[in-house]
Amino acid sequence: MRVALDAMGGDFAPGPIVAGACEAAIDLPDLTVVLVGDQERIEAELAKNPSAPRDRMPIVHASQVVGMEEKPVEALRKKRDNSISKCWGLMATGDVHAVVSAGNTGAMVASALFNAKMFLPGVRRPGIAAIFPSHKGPIVIIDVGANMNAKPEDLYQYGIMGAIYAEEILGVTGARIGLLNVGAEEEKGTDLTRTTREMFQASPWSSRFYGNVEGRDIYNGDARVVICDGFVGNVLLKAGEGAVEFLFSELKEELMRMMPDLPGDAGQKMGAGLKRLKSRFEYEEFGGAPLLGIRGACIICHGSSGARAIKNALRVAGTMASDRLRDRIVEQLAGTPAAETAAAKD
Amino acid sequence: MRVALDAMGGDFAPGPIVAGACEAAIDLPDLTVVLVGDQERIEAELAKNPSAPRDRMPIVHASQVVGMEEKPVEALRKKRDNSISKCWGLMATGDVHAVVSAGNTGAMVASALFNAKMFLPGVRRPGIAAIFPSHKGPIVIIDVGANMNAKPEDLYQYGIMGAIYAEEILGVTGARIGLLNVGAEEEKGTDLTRTTREMFQASPWSSRFYGNVEGRDIYNGDARVVICDGFVGNVLLKAGEGAVEFLFSELKEELMRMMPDLPGDAGQKMGAGLKRLKSRFEYEEFGGAPLLGIRGACIICHGSSGARAIKNALRVAGTMASDRLRDRIVEQLAGTPAAETAAAKD
Repeated sequence: MRVALDAMGGDFAPGPIVAGACEAAIDLPDLTVVLVGDQERIEAELAKNPSAPRDRMPIVHASQVVGMEEKPVEALRKKRDNSISKCWGLMATGDVHAVVSAGNTGAMVASALFNAKMFLPGVRRPGIAAIFPSHKGPIVIIDVGANMNAKPEDLYQYGIMGAIYAEEILGVTGARIGLLNVGAEEEKGTDLTRTTREMFQASPWSSRFYGNVEGRDIYNGDARVVICDGFVGNVLLKAGEGAVEFLFSELKEELMRMMPDLPGDAGQKMGAGLKRLKSRFEYEEFGGAPLLGIRGACIICHGSSGARAIKNALRVAGTMASDRLRDRIVEQLAGTPAAETAAAKD
Repeated sequence: MRVALDAMGGDFAPGPIVAGACEAAIDLPDLTVVLVGDQERIEAELAKNPSAPRDRMPIVHASQVVGMEEKPVEALRKKRDNSISKCWGLMATGDVHAVVSAGNTGAMVASALFNAKMFLPGVRRPGIAAIFPSHKGPIVIIDVGANMNAKPEDLYQYGIMGAIYAEEILGVTGARIGLLNVGAEEEKGTDLTRTTREMFQASPWSSRFYGNVEGRDIYNGDARVVICDGFVGNVLLKAGEGAVEFLFSELKEELMRMMPDLPGDAGQKMGAGLKRLKSRFEYEEFGGAPLLGIRGACIICHGSSGARAIKNALRVAGTMASDRLRDRIVEQLAGTPAAETAAAKD
């Protein structure tokens, strides 16, 4: 398995990015990580990890970097030799099976969308899937930011791709697909939600359609896939991060206030417990968010990713690049109303 | 100050609703609570609160109740003698200054919208404002569910109404208005967000416009008012509730696991601390969500509201019904692009 890693993408790149690549390459003997970015800086980081298997860590030089705050499309056009475009170039030529980046999310998606050959047959628009925790285990929320103007056909495809991802990668058999909405009743919501519902009800996937999921029910985990347009999904994802940050900072303050009243090392123990708990909300386990609907595999990591997140992203990207995930998506989208619409170029 | 209270609305009505009314009437000597609902059941609840000032707690009988799960518009049409419509009827005739209900939110909003005379002059569509916690104190998110198809003119008005609410009711002077979006850059988002931004930039409120707010920045509190369409806002509000529920249930489990390792009563103390913290996230302090843009005042309480939430809602409703809040909204919306558009009946 060959994965292209954007060594320059991320708030702290290339340090933790290259470190994560080294850990992954050491752990996974079948993995080759193609490090894409400034050759000199990458080599300097590799030198800090002498036990890394350099024969499975080739470097592809890219002289430019798309900044985290740059306008994606403009930056991609101006900086032709940027590391993100180069990663996708390796995918387009078949040199790698997957792409991983903690860089500018918009640029990652735009760069994939620029090249329609990247899309799997039948796919209208790729979608970014985020993995959330729930009472029943990890759930997939799709789309969290690739597509700001989703059509019902897009949400329909996101549901199917998300369910196949949940089955193949998360091991959730029979994952049900919920439609993010403002109430439980059928007629609730917008034209987008109403038409998406009708589309599912009339489809071969009707038995897997869970119906509406309200914001507060996401964490129940009854629907292991939740579909929504990219605007709502992005707000949901980031607000969830913000809420967890806020809550834990308040918890920490509460703990500090109680400290003097607590006997012995109870405060320290509690603090350690909180840290453990917080890490469960930080998605590092899955390394990042998969972009579904493209050939090969792609994981978009959080800008603040550390070595552990990158290592996990490389591992998951390897699994995602399996033929089975791709074949099932292509098979399930072929001949569905959505794929026909896509073919008709609506 | 006279407030109509839907005594039958809420998951546990009328018990905690009437109890909250009694507490409020006892605490606030200027308050008259008109209890609307089944006379017999209300009297039975009042009998349990012998110290309540019955002379300031008249009952208006309503023989029907809109169920929490009923389809709002259908239910309002079928059940002509329901407690929600009767509350708004009292408002329309000037018998009360404010309406409070923990019942069916959709029915509360629809009943207000049915009667355009309820709207303040210049207001296109009322919006529901939710009060969120933040690092800098309470913030206003508007709209969280009244308007599923918001136009830029609606978001513009929500921003102004939210800012005036933040100033007059929450005491935040110079509250800045943020636009919920998927990134910091101007061109991010949808046609709705781009046009709303242009509208603010060209308006007398431009200096109060904060720009885009991403999901994770909501809790910073830099923008004390955050505007969004009702679909996104509703998902955000409910997902926030769900996340807090989920997080605290996980925290409780973590605490239980640690219990045997903790000396003395440290675990109990920590549990009590958690409870205190959780209550800060439960919005009971503000009683519920104000519906902004109507004559008089209206607070929509959570379905699971207890006596404390109802009591606070009655208190806040009294403050909201002040002339100053209404006058400032009318003054600020008059002559603005949005009000002109409303006048043109677009």
